[in-house]
Amino acid sequence: MSLAQALFAPRAVALVGASGDAAKNTARPQRFLAKHGYAGTVLPINPTRAEVLGKKAYRSIAEAPQPIDHAFIMIPQVEQAIEDCGRRGIVVASIFSDGFADVGAEGAARQARLVARARALGVRLLGPNSMGVIDIPGRLALTVNAVLEMDAPPAGGISMVSQSGTMLGTVLSRGAARGLGFAKLVSVGNEADLGVGELVELLADDAATQVILLFLETVRDAGRLAGAARRAHAAGKPVVAYKLGRSALGERLARSHTGALAGSDVALDAYFRDCGILRVDLLETLIEIAPLVAGRAPPRLAHAPRVAVVTTTGGGAASVVDRLGLAGIETVAPGSDAPIIDLTMAGTSAQYAATLASLIESPECDAVLAVVGSSAMFHPQHAVEPILGAPRTAKPLAAFLTPHAEQSLALLAKAGVAAFRTPESCADAFGAYFAWQAPRERPADVAFELRIEGKKFDEEMALELFASLGIAVAESQVARAPGFAHTLPYPVAAKILSADIAHKTEVGGVLLGIQDEANFRQKVKTLDSDKVLVQAMQSGLAEAIVGYRDDPLVGPLVLVGAGGVLAELYHDTVVRLAPVSTKEAEAMIAEVKGLAVIRGYRGLPPGDARALAETVAALSRLALARGRPVAEAEINPVIVKASGAVAVDGLVVLKE
Amino acid sequence: MSLAQALFAPRAVALVGASGDAAKNTARPQRFLAKHGYAGTVLPINPTRAEVLGKKAYRSIAEAPQPIDHAFIMIPQVEQAIEDCGRRGIVVASIFSDGFADVGAEGAARQARLVARARALGVRLLGPNSMGVIDIPGRLALTVNAVLEMDAPPAGGISMVSQSGTMLGTVLSRGAARGLGFAKLVSVGNEADLGVGELVELLADDAATQVILLFLETVRDAGRLAGAARRAHAAGKPVVAYKLGRSALGERLARSHTGALAGSDVALDAYFRDCGILRVDLLETLIEIAPLVAGRAPPRLAHAPRVAVVTTTGGGAASVVDRLGLAGIETVAPGSDAPIIDLTMAGTSAQYAATLASLIESPECDAVLAVVGSSAMFHPQHAVEPILGAPRTAKPLAAFLTPHAEQSLALLAKAGVAAFRTPESCADAFGAYFAWQAPRERPADVAFELRIEGKKFDEEMALELFASLGIAVAESQVARAPGFAHTLPYPVAAKILSADIAHKTEVGGVLLGIQDEANFRQKVKTLDSDKVLVQAMQSGLAEAIVGYRDDPLVGPLVLVGAGGVLAELYHDTVVRLAPVSTKEAEAMIAEVKGLAVIRGYRGLPPGDARALAETVAALSRLALARGRPVAEAEINPVIVKASGAVAVDGLVVLKE
Repeated sequence: MSLAQALFAPRAVALVGASGDAAKNTARPQRFLAKHGYAGTVLPINPTRAEVLGKKAYRSIAEAPQPIDHAFIMIPQVEQAIEDCGRRGIVVASIFSDGFADVGAEGAARQARLVARARALGVRLLGPNSMGVIDIPGRLALTVNAVLEMDAPPAGGISMVSQSGTMLGTVLSRGAARGLGFAKLVSVGNEADLGVGELVELLADDAATQVILLFLETVRDAGRLAGAARRAHAAGKPVVAYKLGRSALGERLARSHTGALAGSDVALDAYFRDCGILRVDLLETLIEIAPLVAGRAPPRLAHAPRVAVVTTTGGGAASVVDRLGLAGIETVAPGSDAPIIDLTMAGTSAQYAATLASLIESPECDAVLAVVGSSAMFHPQHAVEPILGAPRTAKPLAAFLTPHAEQSLALLAKAGVAAFRTPESCADAFGAYFAWQAPRERPADVAFELRIEGKKFDEEMALELFASLGIAVAESQVARAPGFAHTLPYPVAAKILSADIAHKTEVGGVLLGIQDEANFRQKVKTLDSDKVLVQAMQSGLAEAIVGYRDDPLVGPLVLVGAGGVLAELYHDTVVRLAPVSTKEAEAMIAEVKGLAVIRGYRGLPPGDARALAETVAALSRLALARGRPVAEAEINPVIVKASGAVAVDGLVVLKE
Repeated sequence: MSLAQALFAPRAVALVGASGDAAKNTARPQRFLAKHGYAGTVLPINPTRAEVLGKKAYRSIAEAPQPIDHAFIMIPQVEQAIEDCGRRGIVVASIFSDGFADVGAEGAARQARLVARARALGVRLLGPNSMGVIDIPGRLALTVNAVLEMDAPPAGGISMVSQSGTMLGTVLSRGAARGLGFAKLVSVGNEADLGVGELVELLADDAATQVILLFLETVRDAGRLAGAARRAHAAGKPVVAYKLGRSALGERLARSHTGALAGSDVALDAYFRDCGILRVDLLETLIEIAPLVAGRAPPRLAHAPRVAVVTTTGGGAASVVDRLGLAGIETVAPGSDAPIIDLTMAGTSAQYAATLASLIESPECDAVLAVVGSSAMFHPQHAVEPILGAPRTAKPLAAFLTPHAEQSLALLAKAGVAAFRTPESCADAFGAYFAWQAPRERPADVAFELRIEGKKFDEEMALELFASLGIAVAESQVARAPGFAHTLPYPVAAKILSADIAHKTEVGGVLLGIQDEANFRQKVKTLDSDKVLVQAMQSGLAEAIVGYRDDPLVGPLVLVGAGGVLAELYHDTVVRLAPVSTKEAEAMIAEVKGLAVIRGYRGLPPGDARALAETVAALSRLALARGRPVAEAEINPVIVKASGAVAVDGLVVLKE
């Protein structure tokens, strides 16, 4: 019995703590399994009852008859239940009970002990704090999630892994109401053992699954999920994530709610991109996007994305065109210079169908969107007929319906055509689709040895380290009291040299543009330091910041941004998982708004973007250093010149 | 018979071009009037039929019996119909026919002639290209809008004026499906005569209207709408706008679709704020927001807005808290240091109700949001009971329902409680509510005379004009070939002086930091100009840009932003309607991100924000110059010092 079979298609399930009171949450799994037609054996476990809701009950797992593949645990005595599972050779236990990592440090320790014991016993765990597992086509509703009170949700190819049980219910209830069909849905709870990554692996291998949706509050197993996303990609199954924690407050809540360490949203964004995971902004997009991406591959366009919009309502089309424009997507009407194709007056279904067919064939657009007005409300079949009959190709075809039009939406869903209720969700879905990239192929990791002496880096050491990576650094010398002798040509900069001061400028530890020896002698004393770093002043066309961070959740990251205080205020940086190639670094630089000043903006002389890219790529190679000793490194600024780029400041922080 | 009565409660309507074929659009008004129970007289006008859909028809308006208050015109011969209306003393004609400003210059000329003639005849016009007028409680469905095929939309206090007939249908159909009650809805079409502004006036005076929704593609009558919004505010009726054209493409489409001049979105944003009009970002928010604002006033908080979130689902709450955080809204749990109030485990309805009541009383939050999970789907009455029973005060109370829960939504709508389907719309509505300000009270306009000689301004003239407004400008002198003599102390700047060159820097026309006379003599020749402006070099803590523009749609605007190329790249500017007071200018400056550098950011020395504010206020007074001769004025940069702020460059463009 494989893990996937035990999870989704167990021959028999034990419901540990099944209640005889049908109104209680702990009665739900038994009720739902019956309601949705589970064909296997259901074994209620309850020490005080011989019968539960009409089924023979057992006092313990030990007393239940063979075989049991999956136990669903709803009692506080989880440890005892897992011992019983182990003794009976039960493959997997889903734990609804809470009181583990969800309640602080003590609970986390309890959880760690539980996992260790389960491993020893050979029992896999889902949860704790999980709402369970649902397989719609397989008729398994092994869950306390109230959403299963619904009758016969439609079966289909959408599967979902959720860190929130409620939101799993939200997506299923709303999707089902729309006629979208689901396969497998899993609430992972605390992810003590089975995590999102391993579940995505199972879904990547699952014949019924076509699209995998993720509702995330954090990422707990970045490495495994990255591999799983690649596996899903190879299997032609898009993975779409909605992740909380974009605002600082949301991040705090995601953390406090789940007991997990929430990661910086920017880091996770870079991570999703790297893994080929689509990210949606709106909750409703997560529900609506599946038919847009199912069976499709990342679009790989060499130009700005173009959507052909066909409409029978000017105002309705304008609302979505406006939103597409905000997402950087062009609207085109091939063969015309109008922004959209307005069929309001044209009229016949045949004309509509012919227009759609020709757009789907046209090389002048990358997707087709049909906007339907009030006819979708009162003549649902007629309104969507030309869309339902349109040819299905690799080019996405979608519909946005302006009125309240449940029937039309259901017809489209049934036919597998993406349909959207709001212009915003429609544009968000197209935005995610066009931003979708195949998982990045990493160059084979050629690890190297980083020579590091001591535990703290001052600036001189940092610049030396950067130079050893192949980065051009400003010529500098250490000058010491009392004479502060150096041999560099003026003008120079002089800076306090200390491994204990990270922000030298803020403590007045940086002197720039010292013009001559006399001035130097006079000023250097004001630094009040025995050791100063003297550097030849560098001038260039722009300043950039280049950074590296070994993120606790997603691992090494590299960052590039415009330099200076303003760029910092505007958070104008681009982040990728490290290492990156020079070519990838060039693409990053092209995304930094403020670096337009080295791209010939307003007639300014162009700077050496290639040299800056080489600096970014070189710093990102810290990710390949054996043992990854560096926690953070930053060059702020790199001076970008007409030819070349030079690091003039450096900071390196080692891991503790 | 008043205009409002003729529009919304006519005793008799003439349907000019009413079709006897019930399937045709032009049969709709007659069908809809009958279907929805219009009690007045319906007079079909059709030259070829004695009877239309069972009603006696007349060959022309002239032949129809008295009295007629409102004509609905669906024939191409609009001019003839208006002549007939005039002869019969018909108060208002709604024109569905198109072919006017919606089809280009020739159509616009035709429209102008039509309006002139209608004025002469004393007939008011709605449209052309209007879908008509709906009064739900009044049972008037004088429209071709297919949305009226629906049975008995709920009556209520929401009224709407829409520049898109379809989107009026969208809001009505979706709102009605949710149980939201409507009063009057008007499709304004081309606004040849009756515009959005005048209709908002009528709705401000309308007893049935509590909230006024606007669907806008542009603003054609900014002055009148501004007055109408103030009238609505005085009557306690919030005005909420959803406006297209935020993206460049959307703006182009809004323009081409309506034949209107679409305005810069930023200008309209400033305008809405000035008028006290709430602006929503998402289309669904326009539908859902009414109960949140109905009967309420702008919140006038002196602190960041705080919403208390009560939930029975952690994941559901997290999704909306995250979004509220992005909108700058704090989530609080008065009496606790948790970010939300989780009642998942608490359980009883009585506890829930008590919590809501105490939060509504609490001075520690500014609004209350109840997040409801799956119970809203299966036990709608029970799930929302505590919310329905909560005390109604000036503090907003709203609900976000995570599952598909139509019945719960309808119960809340019926009770007048704001309810949201998505976390995004919920956060958007709260964002609009907390950003809501009373219409700005303008100081009494003290017009002044601006002495202007010539038609073009060079920089010297511009700086003189600024000085005459009370702005501190850098000391400067005009130096002329061949000697270029001046008496300013070095270092100086030298600039080409020409009224024909707006971007001097881009043509190499600016020399900065000239250190001495010899250097000056050598360099000034490179400017290749007979006249140069010499200025004492100014140094300061930051550069700012201050601008003025007399916008063709909304009138005078004033702008302040961080100076320099980066700030321009980041569009970091704040715009308000001009004039502004120094205090208002200070509030603008506080919103400019890049000007954090004069607010003590990272230990930088603070700059004189007050002096900058005085500059902004002084430039904004161009709005009070008699005849408003200035089209645009810009100071870029203003140098902000520790004490004072100095304009060092100036540009003035007069109106043609």
